[in-house]
Amino acid sequence: MEADMPAVTVGVDFGTLSGRALVVAVEDGRELGSAVHEYTHGVLESALPGGGPALPPDWALQVPQDWREVLRLAVPGALAAAGVGAEQVIGVAVDFTSCTVLPTTADGTPLSELPAFAGRPHAYPKLWKHHAAQPEADLIVRLAEERGEPWLGRYGGRVSSEWQYAKALQLLREDPEIYHAADRWIEAADWIVWQLTGAENRNLCTAGYKGLHQDGHYPGADYLASLHPDFAGFTAKLEHPLSPLGAPAGELTKAAAELTGLREGTVVAVGNVDAHVTSAAARALDPGHMLAIMGTSTCHIMNSPVLAEVPGMCGAVRDGVVPGLWGYEAGQSGVGDILAWAVRTALPADHAAEAARRGISPHELLTEKAAAQPVGGHGLVALDWHSGNRSVLVDHHLSGLVVGLTLDTRPEDVYRALIEATAFGTRTIIETFEQAGVPVEDFTAAGGLLKNRFLMQTYSDVLRRPVNVLSSEQGPALGAAIHAAVAAGAYPDLRAASAAMGRIERAVYTPDPARAAAYDLLYAEYRALHDHFGRGGSAVMHRLRALRAAGR
Amino acid sequence: MEADMPAVTVGVDFGTLSGRALVVAVEDGRELGSAVHEYTHGVLESALPGGGPALPPDWALQVPQDWREVLRLAVPGALAAAGVGAEQVIGVAVDFTSCTVLPTTADGTPLSELPAFAGRPHAYPKLWKHHAAQPEADLIVRLAEERGEPWLGRYGGRVSSEWQYAKALQLLREDPEIYHAADRWIEAADWIVWQLTGAENRNLCTAGYKGLHQDGHYPGADYLASLHPDFAGFTAKLEHPLSPLGAPAGELTKAAAELTGLREGTVVAVGNVDAHVTSAAARALDPGHMLAIMGTSTCHIMNSPVLAEVPGMCGAVRDGVVPGLWGYEAGQSGVGDILAWAVRTALPADHAAEAARRGISPHELLTEKAAAQPVGGHGLVALDWHSGNRSVLVDHHLSGLVVGLTLDTRPEDVYRALIEATAFGTRTIIETFEQAGVPVEDFTAAGGLLKNRFLMQTYSDVLRRPVNVLSSEQGPALGAAIHAAVAAGAYPDLRAASAAMGRIERAVYTPDPARAAAYDLLYAEYRALHDHFGRGGSAVMHRLRALRAAGR
Repeated sequence: MEADMPAVTVGVDFGTLSGRALVVAVEDGRELGSAVHEYTHGVLESALPGGGPALPPDWALQVPQDWREVLRLAVPGALAAAGVGAEQVIGVAVDFTSCTVLPTTADGTPLSELPAFAGRPHAYPKLWKHHAAQPEADLIVRLAEERGEPWLGRYGGRVSSEWQYAKALQLLREDPEIYHAADRWIEAADWIVWQLTGAENRNLCTAGYKGLHQDGHYPGADYLASLHPDFAGFTAKLEHPLSPLGAPAGELTKAAAELTGLREGTVVAVGNVDAHVTSAAARALDPGHMLAIMGTSTCHIMNSPVLAEVPGMCGAVRDGVVPGLWGYEAGQSGVGDILAWAVRTALPADHAAEAARRGISPHELLTEKAAAQPVGGHGLVALDWHSGNRSVLVDHHLSGLVVGLTLDTRPEDVYRALIEATAFGTRTIIETFEQAGVPVEDFTAAGGLLKNRFLMQTYSDVLRRPVNVLSSEQGPALGAAIHAAVAAGAYPDLRAASAAMGRIERAVYTPDPARAAAYDLLYAEYRALHDHFGRGGSAVMHRLRALRAAGR
Repeated sequence: MEADMPAVTVGVDFGTLSGRALVVAVEDGRELGSAVHEYTHGVLESALPGGGPALPPDWALQVPQDWREVLRLAVPGALAAAGVGAEQVIGVAVDFTSCTVLPTTADGTPLSELPAFAGRPHAYPKLWKHHAAQPEADLIVRLAEERGEPWLGRYGGRVSSEWQYAKALQLLREDPEIYHAADRWIEAADWIVWQLTGAENRNLCTAGYKGLHQDGHYPGADYLASLHPDFAGFTAKLEHPLSPLGAPAGELTKAAAELTGLREGTVVAVGNVDAHVTSAAARALDPGHMLAIMGTSTCHIMNSPVLAEVPGMCGAVRDGVVPGLWGYEAGQSGVGDILAWAVRTALPADHAAEAARRGISPHELLTEKAAAQPVGGHGLVALDWHSGNRSVLVDHHLSGLVVGLTLDTRPEDVYRALIEATAFGTRTIIETFEQAGVPVEDFTAAGGLLKNRFLMQTYSDVLRRPVNVLSSEQGPALGAAIHAAVAAGAYPDLRAASAAMGRIERAVYTPDPARAAAYDLLYAEYRALHDHFGRGGSAVMHRLRALRAAGR
C-alpha cells in the first residue's frame, strides 16, 4: 500500500439512538473521517412502528432495519468523509449497546421481520434499557441463591433485568409462541457480525457479561427448568463456540460488501460491547485502571489479575475485556438521561429563552448557573435512580429522590444536585470495589459528558482523584477500529494496538481539597439515603412502582 | 338610617402581598364592594428598600408605610365601589397576617421609620413567614421543657420560630441596640388599630396564639432571663390590657378619618388574625367545626369545649376565636406557595406556551394535565415541607422531598404529588387532633385555593370527609366586617352575627370511595416518610439546611 494511501480500519459503533462509523489510521489511530446515521425509529417506548396497543412501562425496543441502515449509509459516508477508498480498509469491527438482544430464526432473520409477528412486541429486539423483566431477574436471583449456583457470585450476587436470561424468561412467560419460534437468541453485536460475514459468530464478552457464561458453560438445564418448565432447553438458543476478543470473525460477504461499500473479503472482527471496547481506545487495559464511559448511562470497565466477588458489580469475566485478565463491569443506569430529564421537565421558559438568546444549550445554561455557588449551597441531596440502580444495588425498581427542597430552590440547584448524585454513585462503586479487594489505581472518563467541564471537575472533587480523559469523542468506534486492526493482523494483540492507536490525557481534572472536604459531607448524606431506600430501610420506592403499574 | 342607605361595616384584611377593604351590609352580610392595594415593597426577602447587604436566608420583612397605603387607598376605593357613603359605615375592623410583629417607640412609631435605623434589617416588621429565628425557637422550647413551663403544653409542646418571643429573642441576640430602642413589640394587627384610634390596644387572640399569653399572664421573668440575661424584662414591651374579640377598641381619630375617608368617631373593633376572623365568615364557630384557610399557607381553626394538649398544634387559647370556647390553631407552612414554586421552577416552555395560547393559568394547565390519571399513577410521594412544617412537627428546618422520580415523570406529575402532599398534611393534622381527644366533626375550606376544584376534590378523597366551602372569596375581610358589626352593637355577639352575616355551602365535595382507598396507600407512604424525616429517623434535612447556611 502506498504511503499516501495508509491502511485504515473502520469501527462501527451502534448506540442507543444512532450508529456511527469511524475511519481510523492503523499506524497511529488518527481519526480520518466519520458519519452518523440516526435510527429512524429511535427507541420504541410507547408503541410499535405500526401502532397498536401502548407498550407497558419500562419497555424499550428497537428495529433491526435501523441498524442495517447504519451499515448502508454511515460506513460509506465515513469513507467519503475520510477521503479513503475501500481498498485501504484492512478490517472492520462493530460494537453495540448491550445487553440488546433479539429473537431470530435459524438463518438470523429477526422475528419482528416475519409478517406474522410484526405486530407482536416480544418479536422485537429488546434494547439494553428495557427494564420490564425485573420480576424475572428477581426470580433468577432467588432460585440461583437457593440452589447455590456457582456463577452468581461472579455478578455481585445479582442479575440485572437487562440481561439475556431475564429478557428471555420474560419472553417465554408473556409470549411463549414467539419464544418457541425463536431458534436463536442473540446479542445485537453478534447479529450485526452475522449480517456482515454471513455466519453466526458469538463473542466471549457479551456471553460472559450478559449471558451468565462462566468457566466454559452456561447455567445448567436443571436450574433453568426450575425457573420455568419450558425454559430448560433455553441454552440451545445461545449455544455456539465463543470467539476471543480481537480475533477475526470472518470476512465480508458479497452482499455485505455491496451494502457497505467495502470490499468483499475484508476482515470482520468479533463483535463487542460499546463500553468494553472503549477501554482499548482509552489505553485503559492495564490492571486497576477504571474507565468510566459517561453518557446516557455510565459503564465502568476495569481489568484486574484479582478475581473477587464485588457486591453489585455487573460481572467479572475472564478475558472479558482483554485476554489474560479478569474484566470487571459496573454501571449507573441513568446519568445523562437524568440530566436530560431535568431539562425536559424543569427548565422554565425564561431559562429556555435565555439559552436561545445566548446560543447555548439548556445544559450549558443550567451548568453555568449551577456552578456559581459553594458546595452544599443549594441544600439538596438527590438519589440518581430515575432509571433504577445498576451498581451496587442492581435494582431497577428503585427511583429518584430529591430532598432539601425549599421555596428558594431553583432549577439549576436541582440540576447540580443531580450531577452530584451521579458522582456520588460513581464513588459508591469505586469504594465497593476497593472494599472487596480490587484496587482502583487510575480513573479515566470517556463519553458525551466529557464536554461538561463543571461535571468533570465535580467528579474529581467528589472522588478525590485525578480524572484522566479519553481524548477522542468517538471512543467506542475508535476502540472497535483498534479491534479491527488486531483482527486484521496489524498488531500482535489488543494491548499493543491500544498503545499505538489509543489516546489518553492524564489528570485533566484534579480535586480541590476544600470542595472535596465539603463533598464528603454531602456524600455521607447520599450514602445514608442510598442505604435507607436501597437496602431495606424503606421499600417505598418498590411500593410506589407497584402502585404506578397497578394504576396504569 | 334610611332603607336605601343600609348600615354597613368595613373589614380590612392585610395579607402577605396586599391589603383589601370590603364593605358589607350589616343586615345579611351581602358584600357591596371591595378594593385591593398591592404593597409597594411586597415581602423583603433579599434586601431592604434602600439596598445594602443581602438579607440572610429565611428572612421576610415588610414596610409599615405599605400598610398605611391600604388604609388611604383601599378603604375609600371600597366605599366607592360599593356606592355607599361614609355616613353608612357603623364600624370598621382589621385583620392581619400573624405573627407579623414590629418594634416601635412608645408612641407607636416603627423603628424602621427612624432615619437612624432605616438601614437596619432588625428595625423592620418581621412578616409571619420570617423563619430565621429557629435557633431561638429551639432554645425557647428546650428551656421551657427543662423548667417545666406550664404554658408549653398549650402549644403542642413546641414554639414556632414565627412567634413574638422567638422573633424578639433573635432581635436581641443579633441587634441589641434595636432591641433596647424598642419600647413596644407589637403585632401588626394591633399596630394598625393604634393608627386608627390613636391609642394602643392589644387583642386576646394574638397575645394567646403568638405571645404565649395563657391563664392571664405572659411567661415569667425568671424563665426569660434563662434565655438571655437581657431578655428578663422583655414582657414590658408587650404588657397592656387585652381586649376580647368583637369588642370596640376605640373610635376613628380625625387623622385616621382623613386618611381613610371614613367619619371621625366611627367604631373600630379589636384587631384580629386573618385566619381566626374567617371562622366568623364561614359560620364555623361551633365546637368541632374545623376551618381550613387555604392559600399561600394553610391555617386550621377550630373551637372546642375540650382543653387537650394536641402534639404540634399551634395553640389552644381560651376565648381565642370566640368567647366561651377553647380556640385551637394548627397550620401548614406552605401550600399555595409550594404549588407556585412548582410553576416557577418546573413549568417547561411548551407548557407555558400552551397555557398562554389557551388563555389559562399555568396552575390550571398543570391541574388539568395532572388530573387525567388514576391515583398513584405518577408513582410519586412528596413531603410538603418546602417552608418547613408548622403542624404537627413544628420544625421550620425541615424541607421538601420528592421520591419515586423516573425518566417518565412529568411536571404535572410532580405538581399533583405536591397537591396530594398538602392534603396528606391536613389529614395528619386532623388525625392528631382526634387522637388527642378533640373530635373534628365538620370540615370547611376557605381561601384562594378553593378555585382549584381538583385540589378540593383531592382533599375530600384524602380526608374521606365531605368538604364544605366558605362561599365568599373574601373570607377574612368578611369576618372582620362581622367583628365590626358586633363592636358597633348591631348584634349581641359573634355567633349571632356570624349566623346572620356569614355563609357556607355544605358538602360541595364528597369523597369517592375508590379514590379514597387508593389514597390510603399513598398516605401510608407519606406518614412513613413524615416520621422518618420529621421525627428523628434521619436528620438529613437539618444537616442540609446547616450546610446551606454555612455555604452561603
